[in-house]
Amino acid sequence: MAEPRDRPVLGVLGGMGPLAGATFAGRLVALTPAARDQDHIPVILRNDPRVPDRSSARLGQGEDPLEAMLRGIRLLERAGADLIAIPCNTAHLWFDQLAAQAKVPLLHIIESVCDDLERLGAGGCRVGLMGTAATLQLGLYRGPLQRRGFDVLETAPEDVRLCTQAIDAVKTNHPERALAPAAACIERLIERGAQAVVLGCTELPLAVPHAGRRAFGVPLTDSIDALARAAIARCTMAAAPAEA
Amino acid sequence: MAEPRDRPVLGVLGGMGPLAGATFAGRLVALTPAARDQDHIPVILRNDPRVPDRSSARLGQGEDPLEAMLRGIRLLERAGADLIAIPCNTAHLWFDQLAAQAKVPLLHIIESVCDDLERLGAGGCRVGLMGTAATLQLGLYRGPLQRRGFDVLETAPEDVRLCTQAIDAVKTNHPERALAPAAACIERLIERGAQAVVLGCTELPLAVPHAGRRAFGVPLTDSIDALARAAIARCTMAAAPAEA
Repeated sequence: MAEPRDRPVLGVLGGMGPLAGATFAGRLVALTPAARDQDHIPVILRNDPRVPDRSSARLGQGEDPLEAMLRGIRLLERAGADLIAIPCNTAHLWFDQLAAQAKVPLLHIIESVCDDLERLGAGGCRVGLMGTAATLQLGLYRGPLQRRGFDVLETAPEDVRLCTQAIDAVKTNHPERALAPAAACIERLIERGAQAVVLGCTELPLAVPHAGRRAFGVPLTDSIDALARAAIARCTMAAAPAEA
Repeated sequence: MAEPRDRPVLGVLGGMGPLAGATFAGRLVALTPAARDQDHIPVILRNDPRVPDRSSARLGQGEDPLEAMLRGIRLLERAGADLIAIPCNTAHLWFDQLAAQAKVPLLHIIESVCDDLERLGAGGCRVGLMGTAATLQLGLYRGPLQRRGFDVLETAPEDVRLCTQAIDAVKTNHPERALAPAAACIERLIERGAQAVVLGCTELPLAVPHAGRRAFGVPLTDSIDALARAAIARCTMAAAPAEA
């Protein structure tokens, strides 16, 4: 039985981590202008936490997650996804391999964050960057930010543990322990000259509640919200696919 | 390519409303004891808001949602769901028809709420009931609560508008407008003798933030959390299905 094809269906490859995947689905709803249920974007979320750890794999200590992510993409395609978002920054270290095998377009979280920095008036600024050890060590954001004219200031090697502590606290369901290390890391970046800060791991927005963000005095770009805004823009603007 | 079958996959028929579906996925994660991503329950959430409005249909004013819900169940089954949760109380007016056609077990939100009332020490109490106009008018909760020994106190007809206002505020992305009518309805039920109150529509937990619930002085049973607890119990206890 065919689904009504009045608008694109967004596939979400979540579970990396699971709270980030679920929160992405919630922020997608909260950021969509809607007067009733039926105005929202149809979503299929695969929130499967069994994908091997991305940071461990990339830093040479663990199983490669590529096959598990490809299985997820195939499942979303079979379930009718017309485009796919992946609310995990570190997973984007495999973006080119995923995009090469996907039959539908994949949104790129790093490009969404760059768009969001521009939306926030931070175009061309010195941008402080937080993320997992793998995202930072492998420079996932560095090239794309520089190509779009940003000056990049990465979390200093001695402060990476602050990111890791915040991320681990969220992943172990203790978000109340996540704010202090995340805030300390943001403040260190600002002391070093950051004019905006990227929460470049999808656990980090969960560590720093929206209500307290203004107090830092510089724009914080939330990689969950940035990807949700990009998905809403694409699903709202895209022509509905033809009837199959 | 087969998925690893180390534990059951939970299908979630969401989108009714979309914020409730996404919040259910998040509460499922938050309520699961876990030390790392891989400890969480694998979930496929179909958060599709195109299902026709359940209340309108049941009160004789709108398109029947049964076919759209059955399409969702088939999609979740094809995507590998071993059991299915439906985070929408009103949708359970069609539960028997859905269960008759589903190939996998469906969790029943009303039974989950009864279990949760017992967990909260409210067994045998006089229970105040909130929900959509259809849930209340058609007595969705009345029989099950009475069969399990509860004394049922439904929202008075003149107060149903308070439930509706709170639900509509959540559905239109204005949760900040939802608390006042929801709180007024809870207080009216307590004045009339309720010893516990069921938030018997999955928008209502979004209207009454967790942090403020103790102030009411009686247990509030949250139908999102109750269903999440039931799903966690089933997915944790269930034997993993045999390798296909």
